[in-house]
Amino acid sequence: MRFDIVTLFPDCFTSVLNSGLLGKALAKQIAQVNLVNPRDFTNDKHRKVDDEPYGGGVGMLMKPEPIFAAVESLPILPRREVILMSPQGQTINQPLLRELAINYDQLIVICGHYEGIDERVQQIVTREISLGDFILTGGEIPAMALINGVTRLLPGTVAKVESIKYESFEENLLDYPQYTRPANFRGWKVPNVLLSGNHKEIAKWRLSQQIERTKIRRPDLLKAWEEQQNNECGRVDKQNNE
Amino acid sequence: MRFDIVTLFPDCFTSVLNSGLLGKALAKQIAQVNLVNPRDFTNDKHRKVDDEPYGGGVGMLMKPEPIFAAVESLPILPRREVILMSPQGQTINQPLLRELAINYDQLIVICGHYEGIDERVQQIVTREISLGDFILTGGEIPAMALINGVTRLLPGTVAKVESIKYESFEENLLDYPQYTRPANFRGWKVPNVLLSGNHKEIAKWRLSQQIERTKIRRPDLLKAWEEQQNNECGRVDKQNNE
Repeated sequence: MRFDIVTLFPDCFTSVLNSGLLGKALAKQIAQVNLVNPRDFTNDKHRKVDDEPYGGGVGMLMKPEPIFAAVESLPILPRREVILMSPQGQTINQPLLRELAINYDQLIVICGHYEGIDERVQQIVTREISLGDFILTGGEIPAMALINGVTRLLPGTVAKVESIKYESFEENLLDYPQYTRPANFRGWKVPNVLLSGNHKEIAKWRLSQQIERTKIRRPDLLKAWEEQQNNECGRVDKQNNE
Repeated sequence: MRFDIVTLFPDCFTSVLNSGLLGKALAKQIAQVNLVNPRDFTNDKHRKVDDEPYGGGVGMLMKPEPIFAAVESLPILPRREVILMSPQGQTINQPLLRELAINYDQLIVICGHYEGIDERVQQIVTREISLGDFILTGGEIPAMALINGVTRLLPGTVAKVESIKYESFEENLLDYPQYTRPANFRGWKVPNVLLSGNHKEIAKWRLSQQIERTKIRRPDLLKAWEEQQNNECGRVDKQNNE
């Protein structure tokens, strides 16, 4: 996977790209990240990348020309997507990350900044993605989240495929509580069932914890999970009747 | 505001904390960020911070002791919150960021990693926050989002208060399209109304664009906006009748 990040703050990415699992994945060339600065594609003396909004309003907008020039300077891989990170886009979730990881060779990620970005940038954007319903000073941290979330789904990044396979969000349930040594920490003990060695009971306990936790914290997810369960039962019933 | 970030990858934060608006805010001491590594609070030769999960399962969990020790090493400011970044938490949104910015002097942010974190860490956690319904390799990028989103709401970070005041998510509407020079870029023109100088018409056009865009992209938000409008009308009517 090739990521091209269009950003006014390329320095911002240095340490995230060099540490942790992402740093390792990039070192192993599972993915590569290329940073491109629209400021390098300005023609005026002041290298101006922003200007005032038409129709009034506070703050400065990113001008379209340097962004177009930056994107147009990039090589074109067969399966590519031009993504704008913006609070107006589709909210990131696990199926979206998986789709990007599977279907593309090149993800160009434009990071908005200042108060916004000229609307005509939409002409080269194939997808607008949001980190969530909140505002940050720029699209850099959202772009990091996207790079991280997609890269960890690429073959070779996470050692054990199972770690990825059983991710709770794929099935609309939150994760179950987990415990490691010591069995007794300051009087707080690991639940007995986890020490029992009875794998069937452990699986049962974990699923019940997942359901209970999702019910309390995220009734919206639980509803989706229940609908999914019903559909699956429906499919099985239908198959049995055929 | 004081942020204490409990992380196994403190290096990861360096460049984000030094660039852009966040770098400036930290230089102006509007906020300070202190990084603390649980690995520095281990007592064994191998400085072990993770271990296998009880009851089986793939991957390693973060052990409770080094995290407790790291948090307990920190100074205690009057209004403080101990936050765990995890996909099981409350989803970040703008009201949550605002609440944190207003109500606290110290935000301790624990970044999970590996496959998870021992459940007993909940004993010192006062709030669990999620970046959204997707999985990253660790809580570092989510913590950066939290620091950035909270810091930009602190007085002095963003130059003009109005820039923050009229944020779309406060009112459950997406932002309107924005344009800057040139008025004609490759044949794509700025809408005439924005060049008209008629502020009333511009405001009308922008609101209609906000509603239309939110209707198409985020019907969930539009519904919340409509309910809010009805409630406000209700309140006004009630006041008028009193």
